[in-house]
Amino acid sequence: PDELREKAKVIIQPIEPAKIDHPAKVDLGRQLFFEPRLSMSGIISCNTCHNLSLGGVDNLKTSIGHKWQPGPVNAPTVFNASLNFVQFWDGRAANLQEQAAGPIQNPIEMGMPHTLAVAVLQSIPGYVDEFKKIYGTDQIAIEQVTDAIAEFEKTLVTPNSRFDKWLKGDDKAITAEEREGFRIFYDSGCIACHNGPNLGGNSFQKIGVVEPYKSTSPAEGRAAVTKKDEDRWYFKVPTLRNVELTYPYFHDGQAKTLEEAVTLMGRLQLGRTFTDDEVKKVVAFLHTLTGERPQMPLPLLPPSGPNTPRPDPFK
Amino acid sequence: PDELREKAKVIIQPIEPAKIDHPAKVDLGRQLFFEPRLSMSGIISCNTCHNLSLGGVDNLKTSIGHKWQPGPVNAPTVFNASLNFVQFWDGRAANLQEQAAGPIQNPIEMGMPHTLAVAVLQSIPGYVDEFKKIYGTDQIAIEQVTDAIAEFEKTLVTPNSRFDKWLKGDDKAITAEEREGFRIFYDSGCIACHNGPNLGGNSFQKIGVVEPYKSTSPAEGRAAVTKKDEDRWYFKVPTLRNVELTYPYFHDGQAKTLEEAVTLMGRLQLGRTFTDDEVKKVVAFLHTLTGERPQMPLPLLPPSGPNTPRPDPFK
Ligand code: HEC
Ligand code: HEC
Ligand code: HEC
Ligand code: HEC
Ligand SMILES: [Ca+2]
Ligand SMILES: [Ca+2]
Ligand SMILES: [Ca+2]
Ligand SMILES: [Mg+2]
Repeated sequence: PDELREKAKVIIQPIEPAKIDHPAKVDLGRQLFFEPRLSMSGIISCNTCHNLSLGGVDNLKTSIGHKWQPGPVNAPTVFNASLNFVQFWDGRAANLQEQAAGPIQNPIEMGMPHTLAVAVLQSIPGYVDEFKKIYGTDQIAIEQVTDAIAEFEKTLVTPNSRFDKWLKGDDKAITAEEREGFRIFYDSGCIACHNGPNLGGNSFQKIGVVEPYKSTSPAEGRAAVTKKDEDRWYFKVPTLRNVELTYPYFHDGQAKTLEEAVTLMGRLQLGRTFTDDEVKKVVAFLHTLTGERPQMPLPLLPPSGPNTPRPDPFK
Repeated sequence: PDELREKAKVIIQPIEPAKIDHPAKVDLGRQLFFEPRLSMSGIISCNTCHNLSLGGVDNLKTSIGHKWQPGPVNAPTVFNASLNFVQFWDGRAANLQEQAAGPIQNPIEMGMPHTLAVAVLQSIPGYVDEFKKIYGTDQIAIEQVTDAIAEFEKTLVTPNSRFDKWLKGDDKAITAEEREGFRIFYDSGCIACHNGPNLGGNSFQKIGVVEPYKSTSPAEGRAAVTKKDEDRWYFKVPTLRNVELTYPYFHDGQAKTLEEAVTLMGRLQLGRTFTDDEVKKVVAFLHTLTGERPQMPLPLLPPSGPNTPRPDPFK
């Protein structure tokens, strides 16, 4: 028996495949996730910033939103977001449904008032039918929109990473170097914050425990929600699942590479200066956390109706 | 025997399902079509403006490109584009492969020099493997990129429209009103320009034959290519396949509805003033041209490598 694995299993759980309770809702949610008509410009959908062909992110320091406005923080992945205890870097949304109400009407994201978003959907006969079948009403409501999106997002899990295979008993799933990287990760204390099925996503922690983090970003973290000074620089610990795919790193997207992120975490959170060799091994371990991305059909969206409001993106 | 159908069959051919000669190339082309890393911003792909979840278009008057710059003309659909005799409104590209070389490096579309686009692909191990398997070389070339995209685009046909079913003998596929709309379309002479499998796409024709077209767009049509004054206002006749999905209409996107487009075509091209009832019937016919949109998996794109150039979209 591998002692390291036994210790690991106590604090990290493998990602399980999604259980789909309501396939019609998931289908509707997928359409809405890819729906550019939910944006003021007509071209931005959830998938623009959380690209499911990539790592559920846009791989930008900060996102490009309505009229090319820069976002305030780095876009986190939607993969395995259902496993996070709260949503957003500062945790201001309790769950995925609550979260999904944000970006549509955010003026620097999709820029679309909810009343107009609902009017657009209500003008599209295909959507009216689908919502009616699922929610039993003729009048689409924003809570239904966000409920369907959340239900779809719950399917966006990434099981069967090499690390999970190792965790489940397959010795050959990871190399000796990767295992050693995990040992360093475990022994040096990363695991204190990056644990649970998401290796993160289950607590707020301060960035800069031992040494302050220098950032030009105005984001202040959890304090934005609690208004308490002691919560400044506390952010939801991000998942390390698929972290290979979710560059750049940190809430401000300032770290370009995993090497940089790991080096900084060692110093700022643990007061530890890793050697190049240690960094290399930890990064090798982090690459074993890439799981199977969900496969899905490209959704075909229902045609606009005669009265579907038309966007005017250069206004 | 339906006499109208017999006349129709002489000049309009049904869309046939795509024959796929090289599935690996189609797969690669699909990935490239959805690949935002081919743009300077990192978020614009072919699919941004030719959204395959919609009608292969962005449904904007003119497109939104790099840094939110407006495009000069309305984006035509990629559905059935393989059946057009040349590509672009002014026909400046002979075929799909030649066309695909345009948008990547166009500063107001994807804004990405070809050398950089190729360097990005070359830095992504998954792509290097795929290109090697298909093209047999280690060095990716832009001609391979455009070849694969074109091969994918050839699969983007939309067979089995209700009109095609009627053409093939199914009397019930269209209603009496729709058939009457087609009769008006045929008898009044629309068919002179909108014929062939695409009901268009096989000749350049002047917009404003009888009465001049008023536009604020600087686009001058075929004259931009030939430099001949007599070619001003000649545009490739657009396909009417899936025209329900490809609003707004005309090269400048000035006509918001099909009713408007049909009314204008009657007056400007044929000197005919249709009654409201005639317009309604022609539009009803045009709706029968919506075919089955291609179903496909959402492509999963290969992860960036350590040296993949990172975009800097706000620079
Ligand atoms: C213009 C870019 C953009 C668009 C469009 C966008 N997002 Fe986001 N998303 C972000 C950014 C940036 C954040 C982080 C914001 C924060 O934490 O304050 C985020 C956060 C999230 C989170 C929280 C993840 C976590 O771990 O905290 C989820 C879930 C999410 N978005 C889903 C969606 C959905 C669903 C849509 C469409 C309805 C959408 N996003 C549209 C950029 C975008
Ligand atoms: C005291 C808590 C804590 C410890 C210990 C800790 N982290 Fe973190 N980690 C965080 C927080 C909080 C963030 C997010 C910081 C931010 O974005 O401002 C983070 C972010 C990261 C990121 C970037 C993820 C992303 O998607 O942006 C990586 C990689 C990472 N940590 C790895 C490590 C490693 C490796 C160690 C051990 C050397 C470690 N962490 C130790 C709390 C911690
Ligand atoms: C920013 C918007 C935008 C992007 C991105 C874009 N296109 Fe286009 N596309 C257009 C516009 C606008 C036209 C019409 C230009 C013209 O005719 O002068 C066009 C024309 C075309 C045509 C010609 C169709 C016809 O009937 O003439 C094809 C095919 C096409 N694009 C495919 C692609 C491919 C492949 C890509 C990616 C490599 C791409 N487009 C990227 C906006 C875009
Ligand atoms: C003499 C040639 C000609 C005739 C006759 C003609 N058209 Fe057109 N049609 C064109 C051209 C050229 C365009 C593109 C004009 C432009 O965009 O500037 C066009 C565009 C259209 C469009 C818009 C398609 C799009 O996607 O933008 C519709 C709809 C249309 N025609 C329908 C008709 C109908 C209905 C008739 C008969 C009443 C008709 N046309 C007669 C040449 C013709
Ligand atoms: Ca719910
Ligand atoms: Ca990131
Ligand atoms: Ca159009
Ligand atoms: Mg070829």
